[in-house]
Amino acid sequence: MTKPFAIAIHGGAGAISLETTEARKTSIYSSLERILSVGVAAIQRGDLALDVVEEVVRELEDDPIYNAGKGAVLNELGEHELDASIMDGSNMNCGAVGGVTTTKNPVTLAKKILEDSRHVFLQGAGADRFARKVGVQQVAPTYFTTARRQKQLQWAQQAEEENYAYEDPEKGTVGCVVLDLAGNLAAATSTGGRTNKRVGRVGDSPIIGAGNYANSTCAVSCTGSGEEFIRFTVARDVAARVEYLGETVAQATSHMIEKVLKPGDGGIIAVDEKGQFSLPFSTQGMFRGAANHEGYFGVGIWEEMLVRAIEEG
Amino acid sequence: MTKPFAIAIHGGAGAISLETTEARKTSIYSSLERILSVGVAAIQRGDLALDVVEEVVRELEDDPIYNAGKGAVLNELGEHELDASIMDGSNMNCGAVGGVTTTKNPVTLAKKILEDSRHVFLQGAGADRFARKVGVQQVAPTYFTTARRQKQLQWAQQAEEENYAYEDPEKGTVGCVVLDLAGNLAAATSTGGRTNKRVGRVGDSPIIGAGNYANSTCAVSCTGSGEEFIRFTVARDVAARVEYLGETVAQATSHMIEKVLKPGDGGIIAVDEKGQFSLPFSTQGMFRGAANHEGYFGVGIWEEMLVRAIEEG
Repeated sequence: MTKPFAIAIHGGAGAISLETTEARKTSIYSSLERILSVGVAAIQRGDLALDVVEEVVRELEDDPIYNAGKGAVLNELGEHELDASIMDGSNMNCGAVGGVTTTKNPVTLAKKILEDSRHVFLQGAGADRFARKVGVQQVAPTYFTTARRQKQLQWAQQAEEENYAYEDPEKGTVGCVVLDLAGNLAAATSTGGRTNKRVGRVGDSPIIGAGNYANSTCAVSCTGSGEEFIRFTVARDVAARVEYLGETVAQATSHMIEKVLKPGDGGIIAVDEKGQFSLPFSTQGMFRGAANHEGYFGVGIWEEMLVRAIEEG
Repeated sequence: MTKPFAIAIHGGAGAISLETTEARKTSIYSSLERILSVGVAAIQRGDLALDVVEEVVRELEDDPIYNAGKGAVLNELGEHELDASIMDGSNMNCGAVGGVTTTKNPVTLAKKILEDSRHVFLQGAGADRFARKVGVQQVAPTYFTTARRQKQLQWAQQAEEENYAYEDPEKGTVGCVVLDLAGNLAAATSTGGRTNKRVGRVGDSPIIGAGNYANSTCAVSCTGSGEEFIRFTVARDVAARVEYLGETVAQATSHMIEKVLKPGDGGIIAVDEKGQFSLPFSTQGMFRGAANHEGYFGVGIWEEMLVRAIEEG
């Protein structure tokens, strides 16, 4: 019998325009497919869930399409402040960083903090300081900047001056949840936050139980209006509904998206210990993908998933 | 019929020595009684739960006995970095700050963030910057420093050099949970963190769902080894057990202290919508107090509570 496994990824939820150019659509689908394949291969060669979610989120951080690592959005001062967290559901160990500015892969720093074990959450200059101490790769802050995000900041600040609402069309937070072949669950989430955010703003991504969570029953990563995900401790609540109410991850994630959060607030990805996954969202679209031991391999931007079988390795 | 109300406060859990001098015992009991009375009076005059928890936590922050505001512990560089959060269970609004250095009352800044509504969590210099912008009182960082905490840092750093474990005997995080006469629940928590903590370390106090949480069924504040409270999303889990499993706050808090956390990890205070309270801890002692509509008014350091009836206003 095949051992169950599962992986789901997201690259952010938002009002992703249906008029997206074919070239951009192709580049997003191919990025999602490539990165999902990296994760599937890692699981199939027997890597631990914790290592797989780090590897996959590093790929998402390195790809400038997404709002995490390279390609992150800019705050009100035109600076990058990056948040990330990681959790190992097999032992409840976790690590998180808020507001790092020079660490190339915030998820890797979060994992170092998890392994260091003394603390769980480091923020700001102290987090980058710890990164240098333990040898996590540093970059100049300009490494993260792309022309696209600079334009978004201009639009957001113009909207603020003219007093109308601006929402990033693609929020772009990234995340990965994995059930490995040994039955361990893990989750990782990383983000640049929101365009034009106040200096020092922390969203849900580094908050264990809000934007990211894993235990022995499921692993969860969220994307969307971070403040709402903090208020409703969304990631922990998905797992609590599975644990205490006996819901499936599909039921629990749908409940949070449809009954607790408001339409447009965002999306959730979750996998459980049987290899089932769920990827609901209440925005126009969510960059996402999922694969499991049943041979499913699919990626999507809007409602429809492009599905193909996993290639034999 | 008397309308139900309840308030519980804590000033931290820890290995509080039974050999504490009579003078210090007296000053702690009288501080707890005085501050609990402030809260009871505010409830009895009809203040909203959110306002009461802020007022009470300000009092705890201003009293140098406790590790929050004035009297906060020092980090590895001999600096203060203060964390706090506040949550209104009637509408799930919340605010949090991590690593502020010049804001006299971090809980008041957390409340301003809650009211500002744009973000939930601000950290570091950005949080102090927002405080100045909205007129929250600023102080020189030395305002927070006491001789007692300087000595604790010396002991902790000596222990580190000589490679043995040092634990602050009194962790001293403060918190308050309230059910007001209108039936609203709220929670607030504030701390200086852990002596000799790494720069940028964030504990559970500003993490909604970890060290602080309120909804329409109960309000919860925690104290102890913050990292453990983050891992097990303790404050949210108390409420989730009440909400999903139908447990009382006494059952839910005891479950977390006895079955999920390790002995010595800390304590929890909680009140529910009927005016019942629970204050369990697994350390030698916990500075604490509670009062409710049944006329109960008690304060404690170790196992025993000193109980007297509420004085008629």
